[in-house]
Amino acid sequence: MRPNGRAADEIRAVSITPGAARHAEGSVLIRIGNTEVLCAASVEPRVPPFLRNQGIGWVTAEYGMLPRATHSRSAREAAKGKQSGRTQEIQRLIGRTLRAVVDRRALGEMTITLDCDVLNADGGTRCAAITGAWVALNLALNRLVRMRVLKAVPLTGQVAAISCGLVGPAEARIAVADLDYAEDSSAAADANFVLAQAGGIVEIQATAEQAPFSEAEFQALLRLARGGVETLFVQQREAVAKALDASGRA
Amino acid sequence: MRPNGRAADEIRAVSITPGAARHAEGSVLIRIGNTEVLCAASVEPRVPPFLRNQGIGWVTAEYGMLPRATHSRSAREAAKGKQSGRTQEIQRLIGRTLRAVVDRRALGEMTITLDCDVLNADGGTRCAAITGAWVALNLALNRLVRMRVLKAVPLTGQVAAISCGLVGPAEARIAVADLDYAEDSSAAADANFVLAQAGGIVEIQATAEQAPFSEAEFQALLRLARGGVETLFVQQREAVAKALDASGRA
Amino acid sequence: MRPNGRAADEIRAVSITPGAARHAEGSVLIRIGNTEVLCAASVEPRVPPFLRNQGIGWVTAEYGMLPRATHSRSAREAAKGKQSGRTQEIQRLIGRTLRAVVDRRALGEMTITLDCDVLNADGGTRCAAITGAWVALNLALNRLVRMRVLKAVPLTGQVAAISCGLVGPAEARIAVADLDYAEDSSAAADANFVLAQAGGIVEIQATAEQAPFSEAEFQALLRLARGGVETLFVQQREAVAKALDASGRA
Amino acid sequence: MRPNGRAADEIRAVSITPGAARHAEGSVLIRIGNTEVLCAASVEPRVPPFLRNQGIGWVTAEYGMLPRATHSRSAREAAKGKQSGRTQEIQRLIGRTLRAVVDRRALGEMTITLDCDVLNADGGTRCAAITGAWVALNLALNRLVRMRVLKAVPLTGQVAAISCGLVGPAEARIAVADLDYAEDSSAAADANFVLAQAGGIVEIQATAEQAPFSEAEFQALLRLARGGVETLFVQQREAVAKALDASGRA
Amino acid sequence: MRPNGRAADEIRAVSITPGAARHAEGSVLIRIGNTEVLCAASVEPRVPPFLRNQGIGWVTAEYGMLPRATHSRSAREAAKGKQSGRTQEIQRLIGRTLRAVVDRRALGEMTITLDCDVLNADGGTRCAAITGAWVALNLALNRLVRMRVLKAVPLTGQVAAISCGLVGPAEARIAVADLDYAEDSSAAADANFVLAQAGGIVEIQATAEQAPFSEAEFQALLRLARGGVETLFVQQREAVAKALDASGRA
Amino acid sequence: MRPNGRAADEIRAVSITPGAARHAEGSVLIRIGNTEVLCAASVEPRVPPFLRNQGIGWVTAEYGMLPRATHSRSAREAAKGKQSGRTQEIQRLIGRTLRAVVDRRALGEMTITLDCDVLNADGGTRCAAITGAWVALNLALNRLVRMRVLKAVPLTGQVAAISCGLVGPAEARIAVADLDYAEDSSAAADANFVLAQAGGIVEIQATAEQAPFSEAEFQALLRLARGGVETLFVQQREAVAKALDASGRA
Repeated sequence: MRPNGRAADEIRAVSITPGAARHAEGSVLIRIGNTEVLCAASVEPRVPPFLRNQGIGWVTAEYGMLPRATHSRSAREAAKGKQSGRTQEIQRLIGRTLRAVVDRRALGEMTITLDCDVLNADGGTRCAAITGAWVALNLALNRLVRMRVLKAVPLTGQVAAISCGLVGPAEARIAVADLDYAEDSSAAADANFVLAQAGGIVEIQATAEQAPFSEAEFQALLRLARGGVETLFVQQREAVAKALDASGRA
Repeated sequence: MRPNGRAADEIRAVSITPGAARHAEGSVLIRIGNTEVLCAASVEPRVPPFLRNQGIGWVTAEYGMLPRATHSRSAREAAKGKQSGRTQEIQRLIGRTLRAVVDRRALGEMTITLDCDVLNADGGTRCAAITGAWVALNLALNRLVRMRVLKAVPLTGQVAAISCGLVGPAEARIAVADLDYAEDSSAAADANFVLAQAGGIVEIQATAEQAPFSEAEFQALLRLARGGVETLFVQQREAVAKALDASGRA
Repeated sequence: MRPNGRAADEIRAVSITPGAARHAEGSVLIRIGNTEVLCAASVEPRVPPFLRNQGIGWVTAEYGMLPRATHSRSAREAAKGKQSGRTQEIQRLIGRTLRAVVDRRALGEMTITLDCDVLNADGGTRCAAITGAWVALNLALNRLVRMRVLKAVPLTGQVAAISCGLVGPAEARIAVADLDYAEDSSAAADANFVLAQAGGIVEIQATAEQAPFSEAEFQALLRLARGGVETLFVQQREAVAKALDASGRA
Repeated sequence: MRPNGRAADEIRAVSITPGAARHAEGSVLIRIGNTEVLCAASVEPRVPPFLRNQGIGWVTAEYGMLPRATHSRSAREAAKGKQSGRTQEIQRLIGRTLRAVVDRRALGEMTITLDCDVLNADGGTRCAAITGAWVALNLALNRLVRMRVLKAVPLTGQVAAISCGLVGPAEARIAVADLDYAEDSSAAADANFVLAQAGGIVEIQATAEQAPFSEAEFQALLRLARGGVETLFVQQREAVAKALDASGRA
Repeated sequence: MRPNGRAADEIRAVSITPGAARHAEGSVLIRIGNTEVLCAASVEPRVPPFLRNQGIGWVTAEYGMLPRATHSRSAREAAKGKQSGRTQEIQRLIGRTLRAVVDRRALGEMTITLDCDVLNADGGTRCAAITGAWVALNLALNRLVRMRVLKAVPLTGQVAAISCGLVGPAEARIAVADLDYAEDSSAAADANFVLAQAGGIVEIQATAEQAPFSEAEFQALLRLARGGVETLFVQQREAVAKALDASGRA
Repeated sequence: MRPNGRAADEIRAVSITPGAARHAEGSVLIRIGNTEVLCAASVEPRVPPFLRNQGIGWVTAEYGMLPRATHSRSAREAAKGKQSGRTQEIQRLIGRTLRAVVDRRALGEMTITLDCDVLNADGGTRCAAITGAWVALNLALNRLVRMRVLKAVPLTGQVAAISCGLVGPAEARIAVADLDYAEDSSAAADANFVLAQAGGIVEIQATAEQAPFSEAEFQALLRLARGGVETLFVQQREAVAKALDASGRA
């Protein structure tokens, strides 16, 4: 039993609410436990210079954390004048993983930017951002279809992300799914898995925070991740369905 | 009758929900029409260098807008590497107006930072930020009293803010209260009033967007502002009361 | 009687000397008491991207203070790598107020930049900058007429600015015109008025530095400002006339 | 057979030359095929603020690429005024992986900075940097022992890194070890493995560049990586031995 | 005869007016022809970190050019967010040359900053800045003596600067003193000489703008420079004498 | 005899190894004593905006120092976010001196960038950079001839650089050639000479580090420089010949 009362393979309560950014082409507020991320998809009819005149689109992401999303206030990146290495690493990850499930040729020369802003942080913010951003992206693409800009939604699959880790005393550490902040900050190893349907892997980032971990431990983390994302996949599909249903009726 | 169906002196629906930033010492999500601002008060036991060893506290603010809070996406200030002049102007205004109602000697050598982040923008974001920040500040100060860090809440009054403007055709322009984005962007003049109780004025920023306006027009704007903030004062007090009641029971 | 020996409605000695920036299309050195600002108008045959192909011009301003314009040396903004919030606020104000009296359609697709650099500061630098910049702008526009680039000077009016404030002991504070630095730094409230002819108001920025002020006090400040700018209007017109007379003879 | 003529599990020629940065406490020039990285370890008798007075040391890294280390010249980061997200991601990785094999309590309040500068790039620069940095760190720690600052070398293990990937036509893609630039830029998936002795895993970063990959493919990459690092471990130990032997004789 | 009508060894009219920056410990407005530089010396009772606790002082300089000091407006460095290489080069030169004539041990742990701001540019701004800055520094040091902070003025000599160059058609180019902007921008070679009394050399910066120049040409430039600075030395001493006389009577 | 055992006019051992940056159009690793600089020439088929459509080319340089090229580690400029004044001064010097020996009209609208990165520093890095960059530039231009982009190598001459200085006790100081770091940091005066063949001077930068120096001393430094560069000229030509010979055979 974990300090938060969850079983090793139990993820936190998930809710995905569409429409949180009222001007965005697609948006959700995703809550996973006490972590809360606003994901907004913005469509622009142009691509970055390195892609011009090639007939293919671009999907990118930006990530931010409100200064008081965390236990103690952290300095505002806009005021410091630069984004931290952590921020850049996360936003590169989000963009890369979404591009892995978009048919960019079918998208054409448009850019979709996913803004993922953390309103409240309690561990797993990058995973929540990816999971929510996929829904926001899906809604924006559906909107382009309704506007007859696209013929079909150019998504080739579904992605969701979850962090798993090794927690507990060194001599008896166990693998658990969906770390909250308390677990994350004391874990012996921490791995973020971005997974697709049917056993596909999009990205793995596994890090020993203390001593190296074993292959067996790694496999245990991967198994837990696979279980967790199946739940997230269901939530994502339900959120999309509900939002499309609402737009259909409107 | 205005295009949005409101009477000249009618302000939009207001809601102030405490606790939106779960880690902050005080916070609210304020909604005024479709404008939505998350205001979080953070307390730190130190003051900036220019105030050290003088026994007085500091209250300051930072303002931000999520990239897709607006009709079209605007560049993220953290990515651009600097805050715009508009952002700096607004956050200086918020800090200055809150300091006008805090007894900084009674506060002692602590800093309270109000982070005001706009989630959705439809005009009046700086006014919503001030109005919400006063509640967040109040809740944070109350928390310091409950923690026995302060003996009493060092607030000397209440402030709220509203924008009024001259709208309509040049030959028949009228003064209206609480501009939404559509009105704000076509107004002939725009004035932000930060007002205190009992007729007190904390700040006036009045600007002719086109030709100069007359003193009579200015007085009309000021009268409308006075009426509007009285409504905001009531909402602020109710939000504080409800939040304190909840903490009392907890 | 004020510490500086002036009556409540008495402004400092004013001088406006054209031609201070010898390369500029229009320029003045304005002195108001010991405050000294060099204002230079530069004309460029293009407009910023957001205005292109619309047939209308742009008027903007930049403001700076030499590091030792002040009592103690302040860091050079170019060395710090960014302009302070105060600098940006002031330069936005100067640009906005000049645009209010320019017929930008008659100007056509040109940009006029007003550089206002404070050589010596003793209070009221932003007001001196606005008052001087109007003259520099006027001279630059006249030069464009002499060069047959424009048919007529596209100015729709005259603007000048003055700061007024509430000074003296709390129980007996009075309204005075044209604050110098000593008054400004101890004033209970401080208001900058940018006024046009015939009672027009272009901008008001009024701020309570301590407790809120009353509407009656605000009206007293506005009355003083109206009186002060009338004197500035005369000085501005004399400076323009003298400079044009000199160019005419040249 | 790969286009470069190597077998699937064959890594490129490796050389590790100590002493390349003559002022550094430890340094090597590591060459893996045509990739060439200068790794220098600098010791400073202090730790960053967040670690002060805790009796534990810090190991960190910085990464850079000379502008013409690559096929076409890339802009100098010092001239652009900021490090790219890629640079920050890599230097965070290098620092993190070295900290995983240092006993920071035994190190005491000192900071060791590993500067890894790429002179020539042909794929695998981050892996070469990690592999070389471990040797530079080892040499610097040995020097502290010879200077009697430390009693013993506070290393808890050996780490080296290798990139493996899925290459070839989509229908017949195979896993190969130690990608060069040509392979890396066309790989379907790319994984960097930072491995320790005895089967330990320090970090895995696996990314689908196109469609998701399968678990079986991932296991194949991991097996290749395990084989490759064994060769690197031998080279690292030989380089350390040779350098220490030389210092011993000196 | 030069296009400007001057003889080869003839420098432009010089005027040095003390007191131009009213708050500075020492200041002058120096005019050399149409070049105009405001030089202000600021004294601060501290030294930079690298000099602390060594009992020696620091003299440094900052240089700036108002945006419209030049023929066409140049971007404001504060707005661009960085100082150009040219600016940094010049301010390093000014600081270095003044340090060459200050007894920094006699100065003690104080910093004197010379701000040299170009109001109007017509060639030779760095030389005018050096020549004026020496006077401003001298006046500030004299003030410290009058305030009994220093026992004597810790200057070991006098420095002034002049630019000379090779101008005219390639086959018949001649050496001339004190280049104005028109000459400077077409000169085949340009040399800045910072000279001391009694034949001393403080700094030489000589540059071939086109083909290399000969030693004989260089010697001709040096002879002209020696002649020109003698005139500047006289002007400097007169300006100091007049200013001290005025302070003495005050 | 100097502390390093060299005669006053004796320069350190020189080696110039072509091909150090394998992707660059021309490159060398130059070693002068323990100073080691990698010089890479990159050709791009475009010129900066200020030169467009004029049919002339551009030659420019960038300079950097690896953080641990020096005795103690210096902060990485890319991490600090700006290049120091010293760096900018040096890279401007390198570019300027190379442009003095290139026929830019014959080059046509191409840019050649010389990246000079110091791997190990022991005095004279800017002079080594210039001397090495001339060879790298020469090799790149030869390559353009071999590629039939240019008809002939558009070099009008040869340049090399050397630093000389006044060292030793104040009462008996002597002029010496090719200062190493120990001499450079204690020299009474330091001069960098960039010289061309046949007695031509491209650039002189002479600085009194303490008291002014005399004309006689300056002439002694210039004589030493002339002797030293003759040796460098031979080395440069040999390096070019060897590299071209190798390319010819290839």
